Amino acid sequence: MLNRIGKQTLIFRNRPRVLGRFSLVGPKEGRGNFGKFFHKVIEDDLFGENTYEKAECKMLNYTITEAINNSGIKKDEIDALFAGDLMNQIISSSFSARTIGVPYIGLFGACSTMAESIIMGACYVDGGFGRNVACATGSHFSSAEKQFRYPLELGTQRPPSSQWTVTGMGCTILGRAQSGIAVESATIGNVIDWNVSDVNNMGAAMAPAAMSTLKAHLDDTGKQPSDYDLIVTGDLGKLGSEILMDLMEYNGYHLGNNYSDCGQMMFTNTQKTFMGGSGCGCGASILNSYIFDRMEKGELKNVLFIATGALMSTLSSQQGNSIPAIAHAVALSIGGKQNV
Amino acid sequence: MLNRIGKQTLIFRNRPRVLGRFSLVGPKEGRGNFGKFFHKVIEDDLFGENTYEKAECKMLNYTITEAINNSGIKKDEIDALFAGDLMNQIISSSFSARTIGVPYIGLFGACSTMAESIIMGACYVDGGFGRNVACATGSHFSSAEKQFRYPLELGTQRPPSSQWTVTGMGCTILGRAQSGIAVESATIGNVIDWNVSDVNNMGAAMAPAAMSTLKAHLDDTGKQPSDYDLIVTGDLGKLGSEILMDLMEYNGYHLGNNYSDCGQMMFTNTQKTFMGGSGCGCGASILNSYIFDRMEKGELKNVLFIATGALMSTLSSQQGNSIPAIAHAVALSIGGKQNV
Repeated sequence: MLNRIGKQTLIFRNRPRVLGRFSLVGPKEGRGNFGKFFHKVIEDDLFGENTYEKAECKMLNYTITEAINNSGIKKDEIDALFAGDLMNQIISSSFSARTIGVPYIGLFGACSTMAESIIMGACYVDGGFGRNVACATGSHFSSAEKQFRYPLELGTQRPPSSQWTVTGMGCTILGRAQSGIAVESATIGNVIDWNVSDVNNMGAAMAPAAMSTLKAHLDDTGKQPSDYDLIVTGDLGKLGSEILMDLMEYNGYHLGNNYSDCGQMMFTNTQKTFMGGSGCGCGASILNSYIFDRMEKGELKNVLFIATGALMSTLSSQQGNSIPAIAHAVALSIGGKQNV
Repeated sequence: MLNRIGKQTLIFRNRPRVLGRFSLVGPKEGRGNFGKFFHKVIEDDLFGENTYEKAECKMLNYTITEAINNSGIKKDEIDALFAGDLMNQIISSSFSARTIGVPYIGLFGACSTMAESIIMGACYVDGGFGRNVACATGSHFSSAEKQFRYPLELGTQRPPSSQWTVTGMGCTILGRAQSGIAVESATIGNVIDWNVSDVNNMGAAMAPAAMSTLKAHLDDTGKQPSDYDLIVTGDLGKLGSEILMDLMEYNGYHLGNNYSDCGQMMFTNTQKTFMGGSGCGCGASILNSYIFDRMEKGELKNVLFIATGALMSTLSSQQGNSIPAIAHAVALSIGGKQNV
């Protein structure tokens, strides 16, 4: 039996459930719109380390450990860790995996990694390859600026189309259970490139990928956007999320008040982040706090989480390439039966 | 039903099969021990491009395309591409995925990626999430030297413990079929770090990870090394494969004449590669040519392919970290019934 409908959408017939979760953010994010929802806000963005990369790794490690604790499952009953991040060779994830000490699958999907890790984790649980898995990602403003743009010490001006990489982490523990938030289906994205080459305008580069995956999800499942209480993208930002709404309208789908974007929502207007938040940790931290909180309270029953990633490197841009992007969607529900 | 035995070993009850495959290597590898087995040997290691990174991407793209052609499956019936490489942000894989145009899961496992991609692809097919998937990886000597060590133009001397990153690519198409090479089981590795910090001695850094995964595989399945016609590691090289044999002996397992290492075998003694080949493309190109050839001829019936990866980045090493490593094992068979 094929557990898939249409070309891109997987159906998880055993409905892997969210057994535990954790979110951690830095001080700026703690003063943003979701400050009170995150499990932990740290005031020292070096987290006691002497480099931002070591801090990022320690934060991710902490987040995975606390998510496991939150699930009530013993660490040695976590059958696999699916994780990735933005650092070259995903060192934050791999060094975290070294400490966590469970079988590890490293992923790279840039800022789409929270969805990618949940999808691979859900395949793993649904296919019976493991009982409980951890799905994690995160990002750090200062390590990302240093690697992708300029070291902070240069004081480089930011263009108005830019977004602010979130210092934030998220981890979701998936497993089999009779209740709780279920992963119903997922739509795996194609790489989409509409020839945007401005690395200070990630929203524009990623919006077509979000459109492609959202359209595929709706076409595959026969759903309308209004079938979801919330459709939320990871980090398109203010400009990118407006482009997505336009593109979907052009494709005959109206995204109404039930659509929002984590990047657009993360910071307050006075926090000077221009187009809003970005980074793996943007969607990851909000999904694992505010969104799952609202689902568990019954305020949201059906949520489509779409994380988007820009897949360039500094070198690919230096060599004149445009920015390929990808988006993966995860359909989550609570209460009721599987609705696909 | 849990499709797993022991802590780390997955059982693929639907036995995903190798439906197609392709290997491509550069000129030096073409003059090595396996030159006549590779599907394509290119004489221009820029492959008509103007940078080594673009060449690497074009080679991987070509390899995936030819593996799909080799399988006889139409491209639009390939349900997912699982790929990764060594480049920062795995640009070779992501830019290839842009051209191939199928749903894409980006992976990072350094030189363990051929096994990692086959395992994730096998989970996907076995779990019924897709019919046919492509699993691919590759590496390029010159792009890897530039990124991880020194640009070739510097003419830096290589230490005797070093290995030579293979310019090579491999892609395996998996799907459901009644005959052919089957993926029987797989053992997912933990990240192992024995505090080796010499980036010119990858074999020593990775051998403990290979030991950990091989021991887990044997313990989980109750097998002995002699149950396999061939146990082959991806790129431990001459030193690393000797360390692995010692470590296994210490653990009560004797690796005899049925053990070999792709890195150790890739080049001839006169090719001045010191400890032999390395890189994602080392095991990937030999698995998809020589090893699968011998299996299809019936010369090898049961093969355990263990790809090993060193998970550091230049930055993690510069910041004083040791080298975490991982190994993933894939048990392949042809003829007969599932033997686990």
